[in-house]
Amino acid sequence: MSKYNKLTKEMVAELQQIVGDRNVIYDDQGKLETYSHDEVNDEQYAQMPDIVIKPENAEEISKIMKLANRENVPVTPRGAGSGLSGGAVPVEGGIVLSLERMDKIIEIDEDNLIAVVEPGVITNEINELIAEKGLFYAGYPMSVESCFIGGNVAENAGGGRAVKYGVTGRYILGLEMVTPEGEIIHLGGKRVKDVVGYDLVKLMVGSEGTLGIFTKIYLKLLPLPQHTVNLLVLYEDIETAIKQVPPILTDSKTLPTAIEFMDKESVLLVYKYLNEHLPLKGANAMLLIELDGSDEDVIEKAYHDIGDKCLENGALEVYVANSATTRERVWRIRRNIPEAIQTYSEYKSSEDIVVPIANIPDFLIKSREIAKNNGVDIYCFGHAGDGNIHSTIVKRSEMEKAEWDEQLEKTRSLIFEETVKMGGTISGEHGIGNKRKKYMKNIMKPATLELMRRVKLAFDPNNILNPGKIFDTGNDE
Amino acid sequence: MSKYNKLTKEMVAELQQIVGDRNVIYDDQGKLETYSHDEVNDEQYAQMPDIVIKPENAEEISKIMKLANRENVPVTPRGAGSGLSGGAVPVEGGIVLSLERMDKIIEIDEDNLIAVVEPGVITNEINELIAEKGLFYAGYPMSVESCFIGGNVAENAGGGRAVKYGVTGRYILGLEMVTPEGEIIHLGGKRVKDVVGYDLVKLMVGSEGTLGIFTKIYLKLLPLPQHTVNLLVLYEDIETAIKQVPPILTDSKTLPTAIEFMDKESVLLVYKYLNEHLPLKGANAMLLIELDGSDEDVIEKAYHDIGDKCLENGALEVYVANSATTRERVWRIRRNIPEAIQTYSEYKSSEDIVVPIANIPDFLIKSREIAKNNGVDIYCFGHAGDGNIHSTIVKRSEMEKAEWDEQLEKTRSLIFEETVKMGGTISGEHGIGNKRKKYMKNIMKPATLELMRRVKLAFDPNNILNPGKIFDTGNDE
Repeated sequence: MSKYNKLTKEMVAELQQIVGDRNVIYDDQGKLETYSHDEVNDEQYAQMPDIVIKPENAEEISKIMKLANRENVPVTPRGAGSGLSGGAVPVEGGIVLSLERMDKIIEIDEDNLIAVVEPGVITNEINELIAEKGLFYAGYPMSVESCFIGGNVAENAGGGRAVKYGVTGRYILGLEMVTPEGEIIHLGGKRVKDVVGYDLVKLMVGSEGTLGIFTKIYLKLLPLPQHTVNLLVLYEDIETAIKQVPPILTDSKTLPTAIEFMDKESVLLVYKYLNEHLPLKGANAMLLIELDGSDEDVIEKAYHDIGDKCLENGALEVYVANSATTRERVWRIRRNIPEAIQTYSEYKSSEDIVVPIANIPDFLIKSREIAKNNGVDIYCFGHAGDGNIHSTIVKRSEMEKAEWDEQLEKTRSLIFEETVKMGGTISGEHGIGNKRKKYMKNIMKPATLELMRRVKLAFDPNNILNPGKIFDTGNDE
Repeated sequence: MSKYNKLTKEMVAELQQIVGDRNVIYDDQGKLETYSHDEVNDEQYAQMPDIVIKPENAEEISKIMKLANRENVPVTPRGAGSGLSGGAVPVEGGIVLSLERMDKIIEIDEDNLIAVVEPGVITNEINELIAEKGLFYAGYPMSVESCFIGGNVAENAGGGRAVKYGVTGRYILGLEMVTPEGEIIHLGGKRVKDVVGYDLVKLMVGSEGTLGIFTKIYLKLLPLPQHTVNLLVLYEDIETAIKQVPPILTDSKTLPTAIEFMDKESVLLVYKYLNEHLPLKGANAMLLIELDGSDEDVIEKAYHDIGDKCLENGALEVYVANSATTRERVWRIRRNIPEAIQTYSEYKSSEDIVVPIANIPDFLIKSREIAKNNGVDIYCFGHAGDGNIHSTIVKRSEMEKAEWDEQLEKTRSLIFEETVKMGGTISGEHGIGNKRKKYMKNIMKPATLELMRRVKLAFDPNNILNPGKIFDTGNDE
């Protein structure tokens, strides 16, 4: 039995009045279905909403949250739906609050290097707009062409430039948001330092839409790097490749923007998918290294140094991509791995573990052992420079579905166990949502979980906003 | 009437048993006095503790917090006592918990570029130890030779390298801490990405010792920059100097590490104090610009570019300091301003406002007007590249003390008002503590303050840890 009330006709009418009739989806199962899941490809994590509403501003969202509290109906905020932990799934039904209409870039403040945007702006659009002004937003999730900036903040998205630039949270200077109780508040703003009271901006970053709904986001911008080069480095095996990563990080004069890696299985699949034919010749693993900066000579020197070091330490070949076209070609390989796996695998689970960087080789060995013992495949690729590995567990075609369900569960638990043993954790970018919630008790002390629960209830006493995510609050039923 | 209980002989005995007799100060007013204040030079913000205890580890602190909750006695944690907002003052008396004995550097993990330290380590000692390994911790508060790293985390210390490297929070990857209720918990760890649950590490940063007591701190390290250069740029007036700052930030190929500024009043005073005789010739303001990096040529080119641009835009002269000795000489001028003001001024108040960087010139004009209208002096210096201005309000010798008290209050309120109007806030580094608490209601909506209060009570239901700071919790009396 849900503790929440069902939506009544009166509530629907009131919601229609708040956002306007045409910004409501109701009684149309086909259209509602789109809002029942994110990119997690497993129906056990999906749930139909009773209604989808598309507000236009903070005032409308405030009214909606007040109604929801008064009527005890849950609200689940939703960005582009490109998440990978079920964060936008309305697990208790009720209202999905889609931010798709709040898609304005409000201001580019060139004097202060700050952009003010609404949450429904597609992340890539920000960089497209500001590049001509010589500016740059450093966030670069792999779904950059479809994801919303609001979702990036809610999940503290990482991505392909975090080695040098850090993750989304570093660039969030302020937020306007609606609290779960419907108050419109402002946190931070156009300032790079602020120690007045608790840092609620940083607490909101990565809170997975459970503590508030962003309505304006203040993003720190940087001067656009003038020169960028990519190296595609081929290795006979993944161990040799990965062993190269910690010394690149500690010894390089120029810190790379990215150090991505792809194991043999990932490379073969994405080559097939893209119909690519880069020379392989026994290469079973790749590093994709990016360097950027303001000085062409420095970048050139740096990539020669790193390339030479790679060759000295077992690399088979180093390809340099320094035009926009060749650079896009190598990043396209990396970005399309999840899509390639999706295309050729009926059943899979995309994991997202993090270990201390020095432990990546150990993790890959353990991961291969676990795969072998459980009769599944595990594709490993991701952000080697951050210790963030997208372990994708895939069903072999010969395995029965029932057997797969059991082995997937076992495999995932073992992988998480090894990760935690190494001082790592179970998600570096994708978040907990409803997908990884049950593992929280294995990786966190009850006292820590209890603190998080209390923080949730401090913001949301009725547990109205995005319930059923990250952990149970104790008043879910 | 305090809501807290007085310390009994039984409690003293129990505390002595927990930390050992010799690590307790009790019944010795002379020794206790040291722990009654921080660097805020105004007795109205001071308060004597009933007892000072110096635990050695998390287990002892856990026992102390459990005792304090059981007996309803307040506990105020204390680092080096170098704070500037009264954060370490036991405003309700009771126990001061000094972290001075927890001063070990536990581990330097060179493979993962992480240091694990106890909270009582002096910040400078970390860099002294790791420099020979080619590593570098980027935090650089101006009190770096005396402050503790634990205090830096509690206040989210800024300092002299924040333009390029950001503030303390960027480098805190994990914490072991004791909660106000006495639980020992671990947050984050040796990993650069972590989106599992709420980001309590970032919430703890800057929470001013009101949410928990750190017992281990995981610091992110960087490769030590190989080349550093400082420019001391002289101007006829502060307006011309400050107008130079936004274009340096937006147009420079190499982002400076620091852009500090000093107005005429500050410069004259610190020159007198240090008996320095750098050529002035009508120069009434200074910028101190630092550049660092791995490539000598790039740094040289960058400082020539910036120096030329300064001269084109009204600088009288540019001095280059590129040896360790000359660099220390210019930084010494900047670091000693507070000390110089302290020496020559009987009464003063060090403020620490932040405005959007483009607003610094407006703020300085307003500040001068306010000083004139209220018959006080305001010395302005600080971190121009962050919009963070240390406005120091000083009594003129001819003013009576009673008049000063009134004018100080008025001046401070007007400065804060102007700051907030410009989109700024009242503290960039020093924090709220008990000194700025009464201004919180002027700069934050009741709904925002209420959220912070609830977060405090989520961590500390009995309001036992560092009560009376930042805001009232509603159960203070």
